[in-house]
Amino acid sequence: MKIAISGKGGVGKTLLTAFLSRQFAESGYSVIAIDADPDANLAATLGFPNPEEITPISELGDLIEERTGMRPGQAGAFFKLNPKVDDLPEDYSVTHDGIKLMVMGRIKRGGTGCYCPEGALLQALLLHLLLQRNEVVILDMEAGIEHLARGTAKAVDKLIVVVEPGRRSIETTQTISKLAEDIGLSNIILVGNKIHGQAEKEFITSSLPGFEFLGFIPYDQAIVEADLANRSLFNASPQITEEMGNIYGKLVPAAVR
Amino acid sequence: MKIAISGKGGVGKTLLTAFLSRQFAESGYSVIAIDADPDANLAATLGFPNPEEITPISELGDLIEERTGMRPGQAGAFFKLNPKVDDLPEDYSVTHDGIKLMVMGRIKRGGTGCYCPEGALLQALLLHLLLQRNEVVILDMEAGIEHLARGTAKAVDKLIVVVEPGRRSIETTQTISKLAEDIGLSNIILVGNKIHGQAEKEFITSSLPGFEFLGFIPYDQAIVEADLANRSLFNASPQITEEMGNIYGKLVPAAVR
Repeated sequence: MKIAISGKGGVGKTLLTAFLSRQFAESGYSVIAIDADPDANLAATLGFPNPEEITPISELGDLIEERTGMRPGQAGAFFKLNPKVDDLPEDYSVTHDGIKLMVMGRIKRGGTGCYCPEGALLQALLLHLLLQRNEVVILDMEAGIEHLARGTAKAVDKLIVVVEPGRRSIETTQTISKLAEDIGLSNIILVGNKIHGQAEKEFITSSLPGFEFLGFIPYDQAIVEADLANRSLFNASPQITEEMGNIYGKLVPAAVR
Repeated sequence: MKIAISGKGGVGKTLLTAFLSRQFAESGYSVIAIDADPDANLAATLGFPNPEEITPISELGDLIEERTGMRPGQAGAFFKLNPKVDDLPEDYSVTHDGIKLMVMGRIKRGGTGCYCPEGALLQALLLHLLLQRNEVVILDMEAGIEHLARGTAKAVDKLIVVVEPGRRSIETTQTISKLAEDIGLSNIILVGNKIHGQAEKEFITSSLPGFEFLGFIPYDQAIVEADLANRSLFNASPQITEEMGNIYGKLVPAAVR
């Protein structure tokens, strides 16, 4: 199963990615979690020790040069668009609590006809992970989903977009939905987050008609407090943990589990 | 005066950009506000009519081809790294309530040796705006500040980083601060946002020692409600409006005003 999680910055993509990764792992799945959002820190949220010591793949200059034939930052040279990557998941991942984590670092965005060597490597790696691996792959992404190219779209079983009560978040969800359609990805499903009450839930559902929702995670100040106190977020809020369980249950029907 | 506003996704960069732009305009300044965060919508927050009808510059394929000699998405061709841009601020901005707005759209990130044509045009345009224009220029940016290249760093009078009570936001602030140092930008100043009380304020100041703070904007559910009801955010919360005024006052001392 391959799941990509997107949404506007700050809506809670990383929290959902962390909870789902953990639930898959606890249910006995082999899980690869991929941090593809340079503005996130999935390692810390998953409770990995010393997350600041994990070097993102985009910063491994020697590796990028070895595989693409070109050092990051070099101009004017040619480089391989399809570098070898199949050994990278074993060598460049870290494991904690049964979850294998890969940290991508900054992925180039913008024009499709222009590749940086690190972008080529990351894209090949993503493609490999999504097409070849048997594990559950969970991808924490930026709002831009351009790096899900045409080839990868069919490999993603679900694109989950996290949405909070706010106009900008609704707009980003609509943009992502359009981008996803453009690349042939139709399995979009939404999760509401930071919900203060029924009115906010209704705002989201009425602003995004026709979308399926996996669930609505309540706002709980306890999760902010746990974060500030550097405690695990997994047990910080019983109501959030419960709703995450419901979302997992809807995402992975008992038959599939 | 040139001000760049950065921070983790969702911390409130666009809100601060909008309030400051408006206060500069009301004080008689000629203001250019630049939306350089593809995940934001500064036009809507500033109350521009029909913000969805503003085409970002990165999507103007004909303009990009005319100025760089290459269409976005074309591969293998050469293009001008220093396209002509001095006429663009007049022709490709929209004005409302005394604020001139330019919407950049997606700016390429990643390796410095690799440019897409639209990236080259946007970078030249930013450089021009920061170096040549006499107006107050306020830049709403992504957390990545790579597009502030070495040349532009000296042109930015202040880099304001917005920080909310949360570990990820603190980490992003530290990353931005390091990146800024790397490119020679030292005028960094912080603004706290979404503050629920004294403990959260102290968490932020103790987590970021040695930084100067312009102010601390309180959390107020009234701003969420105004957003959901599609009302102007400028008058939604008296306490937020007051603190924005204080921040403006600290940013622009009376002598300069």
